[in-house]
Order: sequence, then structure tokens, then C-alpha cells
Amino acid sequence: MAVYTEVSDEDLAAFAALYDIGQVQSFKGIAEGVENSNFLLETEKDRYILTLYERRTKPEDLPFFLGLMEHLADKGIACPTPIHARDGQSLKNLCGKPAAMVSFLKGISARSIKPWHCQALGQALASLHLAGSDFKTQRPNALSVSGWRPLFEASRHGADELAPGLEALIALELDRLESEWPQDLPRGVIHADLFPDNVFFLGDALSGLIDFYFACTDFLAYDIAICVNAWCFEKDLSFNATKARLLLGAYEKVRRLDDAEVAMLPLLCRGAAMRFLLTRLYDWLHTPAGAFVTRKDPREYLKKLRFHQEVKRAEAYGLNAR
Amino acid sequence: MAVYTEVSDEDLAAFAALYDIGQVQSFKGIAEGVENSNFLLETEKDRYILTLYERRTKPEDLPFFLGLMEHLADKGIACPTPIHARDGQSLKNLCGKPAAMVSFLKGISARSIKPWHCQALGQALASLHLAGSDFKTQRPNALSVSGWRPLFEASRHGADELAPGLEALIALELDRLESEWPQDLPRGVIHADLFPDNVFFLGDALSGLIDFYFACTDFLAYDIAICVNAWCFEKDLSFNATKARLLLGAYEKVRRLDDAEVAMLPLLCRGAAMRFLLTRLYDWLHTPAGAFVTRKDPREYLKKLRFHQEVKRAEAYGLNAR
Repeated sequence: MAVYTEVSDEDLAAFAALYDIGQVQSFKGIAEGVENSNFLLETEKDRYILTLYERRTKPEDLPFFLGLMEHLADKGIACPTPIHARDGQSLKNLCGKPAAMVSFLKGISARSIKPWHCQALGQALASLHLAGSDFKTQRPNALSVSGWRPLFEASRHGADELAPGLEALIALELDRLESEWPQDLPRGVIHADLFPDNVFFLGDALSGLIDFYFACTDFLAYDIAICVNAWCFEKDLSFNATKARLLLGAYEKVRRLDDAEVAMLPLLCRGAAMRFLLTRLYDWLHTPAGAFVTRKDPREYLKKLRFHQEVKRAEAYGLNAR
Repeated sequence: MAVYTEVSDEDLAAFAALYDIGQVQSFKGIAEGVENSNFLLETEKDRYILTLYERRTKPEDLPFFLGLMEHLADKGIACPTPIHARDGQSLKNLCGKPAAMVSFLKGISARSIKPWHCQALGQALASLHLAGSDFKTQRPNALSVSGWRPLFEASRHGADELAPGLEALIALELDRLESEWPQDLPRGVIHADLFPDNVFFLGDALSGLIDFYFACTDFLAYDIAICVNAWCFEKDLSFNATKARLLLGAYEKVRRLDDAEVAMLPLLCRGAAMRFLLTRLYDWLHTPAGAFVTRKDPREYLKKLRFHQEVKRAEAYGLNAR
């Protein structure tokens, strides 16, 4: 839930007048996203999502995010499309903060994941990867393998208090991930945060992908590994192999994985689990108690990491042997 | 901002199926109201506001609130209309909490109040009072004069820390309010919380009144006094007599005040200032630091109370002498 900035009538009216969208008819802060302030803005013409970018989103990254969404939408991906102001720009200012308006997408995010959700996700993820293949701008992934050790150093002091032995486990795993992380898998635009919150369904179909504010350039298969972690474990943290098989099978119908990607998938899944374990551990230790944002338990990703550590081959995820 | 309850897919689908509203197409928590969880629910047919009533709303009061909204909407007041489920009921359960769905109203609340807003408000308030005049159910106002002393007793210990001399000032004022409070002014349904947050405007007209969860049976003129406090002071807490004159003048074009109401208006304004001073003082002292809800500064209403204490006659509010 997130509305950090109050927008005055005058500021809203002046902002809306920058666009060819007609008179504002409704304006409501919505509980979507945790990093930025989001509003549902309705005008005579249509509905839009207005986002004010708060402190944690770097302004210099916004042209990448907005350009990517526009590129993907042009290619037919169901994602928010930035709306251009009358001067042609899609990045504006509101209340002294960077702000952009995007198209409204129908659909609701799945709160309890069914196997068919994973199947629809696999197809959408592969389509996203194909659609992004000719997007020219690059954005390095600061939260890939090179970013993990600094996160660990900033939070290792509190690790064992959360789970005995966690500090040593992470240290050992990091060594291994750093030495075995691949150099040369197929790269491109990845969403990098395609959790259930960020995927909309309408009836029995996927209707939209949202929140591209972690998108970056990285191994495409790493995006799959993030989704396996985010979608294929049950609430009790048992691994649902059917969901993984459907996710990967649907992905491969659109974009076939090469042998190296298949071979590396278990390691990529370990890496993805490590990434969320570390960011959650960092946030756990650095978010004051009673703060506005609910802290997520890092141990969820410790358990997922342990699962992937036991996986020897991608067949465990339901991929066919090559 | 308020979304206290997570609603699962299954619960939402089962809830929506109780109504003849078609398939759910969008479901977003919204930052509206502070006491309850509110969602904007969109279906094939229409948009609705779904409210889950949290701890501070008494379930036994809900039939009054929902019945009142329906009564007022039937009379043409632009307010949320409760939607009936297939079984005819408008009060249901969701996630173990009382829940109701009402019609969606277009419009945005004014964040900076202009004189014309007060004029439109005056007319709408009088229309509300007339429309409520034949509503049969009664609900006593627990936050009128009889409720103030208990609030004071529960928070007097912290009063002087907030503002030196506040405890004595309230004690003296309470004595006077209790002894001079009228017995016999025209009564009926009042909104009792018609702050700018709860009034929508669309273009240059008032488009809706929302949040009837403090509505009750009390002196109609006390509702006016609440609005004078909430709408007619500037951000620097200076009193804007033009706004008051427009509010009261527009009110009287729809419902003329009788002599007793006019004579009592200064005292009712003191009472209304006392009511919000006391509830804010109580919340100030009883809300833990760092809690989810932003505490509102009680001193705003101390300053308003002091203004009204200097007022001798209703002419100060722009009312014509009788």
C-alpha cells in the first residue's frame, strides 16, 4: 500500500492540463506498489494510473522504464502504456517529484496461485522476452550476482539472530554462486520482479503485467528463475512441480531454452532465491519496527534456497532433458 | 489511507457471486476513509466501492448507516447507494467482517477550499437535512455534549503537555457547554463528519457526499456548526467570513433556520470545535508513535474554539440578524 504524497487540487488540475485527457472525474490513491505513490485517475476520456516516483526510484532510470513499457506495449504485450503529454513527453513532474501517467489495465492479481496461472505466466514471460529483444537501451541489473555481496556485508551482522547458521550458509553459497555464475547465456530485457502482485488475470486469462521498475538487462533465464521462486512454492513452502512444469512448458512453446540455459537453471534458481533472501534480510534489519511498510520474512527465501540447493538437474523443474 | 484486510481470490469471487453484478474485472484497495478497508471493485456492469467494516465500526450501527444512505439516495441526494445482494440484503460478510457494497460516485474532494465550495456545501447540507427528515430510525449522537466529559477524563492528563493551560480551558468550557447546550432545536439526521474529504466535486458542482459512518440523530444546526469549523478556516487558522456567509446563505435558501438555531449557532460552533479538539486529543495521546495512522494535531481545534469563544452573535458567521 502506498500513497506518500498528497496532491493538491491545483497541482492535479495543472498536471492533467498537460495532457489531452479531458476533465478529471475521479482521483483516488491506490494500494499498489510499495516504492511509489499510485493514483487511479479517471477523466472524461479514460482511466489512467498516475505514479509519483518516490525516493527509492532513481530519476535517471525512468526513461528506461517508460521507454521499455512503451516498446513492449507497441509489440502487443499487455502492459501499462505511458501516456504522452501534449509536448510529447511521458515523464513529467508533480509535487516536485518525477511523475508519469500510464494506461489502466483491467484484471486482478491472483492471491492464491493455481497451476493454470503458472501456465499463463510462462507464455507471457516468454512473449515479454521476445518483445524486448530489439529494445535498444540497456540497464545493468544491480541486483544480480555482483550486487549480492555488498547486500550481505550490510546485513550479515543480523543474519544468525534471524536464523542460526544463516550467515555461514549465505557466505558459502555466495562463494559458489560467484564462481559458477554463467557469463554467456542469452540476454535481454527482463522484468526481474514478476511476482503474483504484478500479474493481472481477467476470467481465465492473463490480462496484464505491471510494475516494470526493476526491469533491466540480464539473462532471460534468470527471469524464469525468479518466477519459479515466486510462483511455484505453496504457502507451506513445499515445491509444486506441476506449476513449474506448466510455467516452463508454456514458456518453451514461445521461446525454446538452449542447452546452456537448461543446464544452468538450478543455479539460476539458487541465485534468484539468494537475491530475495538478501534484499529481505537487508530490509528486515534496516526497517524500523512499526514502520509504514510491512517487512517480509527473509526465511521464506532461505527455505526456497535450500530446496534449489538439492536440485541437480533441470528435470526437477519439469523441463525435458536435452 | 486504509486497507487493513487482505481479500483472497476465492473470498472475492464468492462475495461477488452473491450479487447480480457480473464478473469482477478489477479490484484495488483505495486510500479512502481511516476506519475501514475500502476497495474499488469493477465488474462487467459497473464500478462499486466495497467496504469491510473494521473494529471501530459497530456492526449493530450498520443497518442505520446503510438504511440511511439508501433513504437519502432514493430522495435524490448524491450519496453512495447500498447494492442489494440477490437475497435482498445489503449487509454481508467478507473475510469474517461485515461488508457492504455501494455505488461508485464520480468526483474528487477539494484539497484547497474555495468560497464556491462552501456555497455548494451549504445547499447540499440543507438538502441532506430535508431528505433525512422522514427517515424513521434514530441513532443517538455519542459524540455530542454528553460524550465530551468522558473523552476529557480519558485524556486530560496529557492536555497541558500539548498546550499549557489546555486542561483548565477545556474544563471551564465543558462546564459552560453542558449548562448552556440547547434542549429543543430542530432535530433530524445529521452527517456529523462532513469534512472536505467526504465531499466530492466534479467540475464546478458538488457531485457527492460520502462516509456516513458518523451519521446520527441530533440538532440539524450542529451539523452546520461542524461544517463551519471544517470548511471556513484557512490553513493559517484565520476565519474566512466570506466562506461562512456563502455556506449559511446557501443553506438557508433550501432550509431556513429558525430564531433559536440562529441564536445558538455560536455555542454550537464552540461545541463542534470541542468535539474535534477532544477526539483528536484522545487519539493523540492513545495512538502509539509510529502507528499506521497519522495523528491530527488537536491544537488546530483549540484555535478554532478560541475564535468561537469570542463570537457573540451569529452575524459573525455572516447570518442576517432576525
